[in-house]
Amino acid sequence: MTTRARSEITRSQILDAARDCFVEQGYDATGVAEICQRAGVSKGAFYHHFPTKQALFLELFNLWIAGISAQVQNIQSIGATAPETLETLSLLIGRVLKDASGQVQMFLEFWTQAARDPAIWQATIAPYHTYQRLFADLIERGIVEGSLRPVDPMVAGQAVVSLGVGLLLQATLDPQGADWDKVTRQSVQILLDGLKSKEEQE
Amino acid sequence: MTTRARSEITRSQILDAARDCFVEQGYDATGVAEICQRAGVSKGAFYHHFPTKQALFLELFNLWIAGISAQVQNIQSIGATAPETLETLSLLIGRVLKDASGQVQMFLEFWTQAARDPAIWQATIAPYHTYQRLFADLIERGIVEGSLRPVDPMVAGQAVVSLGVGLLLQATLDPQGADWDKVTRQSVQILLDGLKSKEEQE
Repeated sequence: MTTRARSEITRSQILDAARDCFVEQGYDATGVAEICQRAGVSKGAFYHHFPTKQALFLELFNLWIAGISAQVQNIQSIGATAPETLETLSLLIGRVLKDASGQVQMFLEFWTQAARDPAIWQATIAPYHTYQRLFADLIERGIVEGSLRPVDPMVAGQAVVSLGVGLLLQATLDPQGADWDKVTRQSVQILLDGLKSKEEQE
Repeated sequence: MTTRARSEITRSQILDAARDCFVEQGYDATGVAEICQRAGVSKGAFYHHFPTKQALFLELFNLWIAGISAQVQNIQSIGATAPETLETLSLLIGRVLKDASGQVQMFLEFWTQAARDPAIWQATIAPYHTYQRLFADLIERGIVEGSLRPVDPMVAGQAVVSLGVGLLLQATLDPQGADWDKVTRQSVQILLDGLKSKEEQE
């Protein structure tokens, strides 16, 4: 095995161990020593990969977001009409929910630390703004092409992201409480019907 | 001052002190001794009012929910059509958001502890089900009276609550990121338009 490959394995062992620790006892209660012990790596190896526990935490967040963004890019490149693209993106929300099942503690840690630590806040809030803007652009395109009604695109984008965040939180916290796949599909359908222009609805 | 009045004051001093401690350092890191010190009461007085820290935490949650429920009762008793009632309830979401500003840490503590402690989970999840059912009933009434389209009422109720939860989380975490009052009003409007029957839309 090359040095580089070994280094990559160490890095993902650290990330996996840290995620487990954060989920079990929270970010604050977890120390670097504990992460190293669970990952079976030295402190030297840890600090070779991550300058601080905070940097490691942000990397976990970035990896999660990167996974979603890659899928969003694929969907956007299909080049359908705005309502069709919005509908396809809703299937993505369902997939994000599925990937996230059992990870509620990790999301809550991201949000809790964001409320306490300005650097983490900055990093966690940025993707929300990115997605609000992405949906706003898509809705604006729909208004221009005449398929959507003339709403305020940015505000509608923020509404869509709020719905996604709420579904994510409810579905991870209360997985048995509803058929969340169905709730996701139906709520996107209702929003879309509310956004569509009269001509599109006929 | 009567003994009863003094006892009520002690009780609210404990609740206020506990809320401050939980917001500043989290539920796990806060001890009963610390709450007593901040409230300026003895441990005896604490345990007279609350058997455990968990019981006190649940009381804070119940007080928050009771405040919302009282307002919902008022709105429901007005007796308008289903779309009108849904619209009025949306103003309430705005008010809940306003009351909640600066309290993000407290909500996150409720959710984080719900994910860790089955008793707290039970208590925090119950109001979500209550509100899902409340909106489902309202939507069903709208379908029967012909003002709303024949969607699955329970699923639509879960969608409405998800949107509310998402708005609450985003608005408390990122108060400057949007005009959340406007986002709330517009997103309820879009959902309503999506729910209304063709006849209502004309």
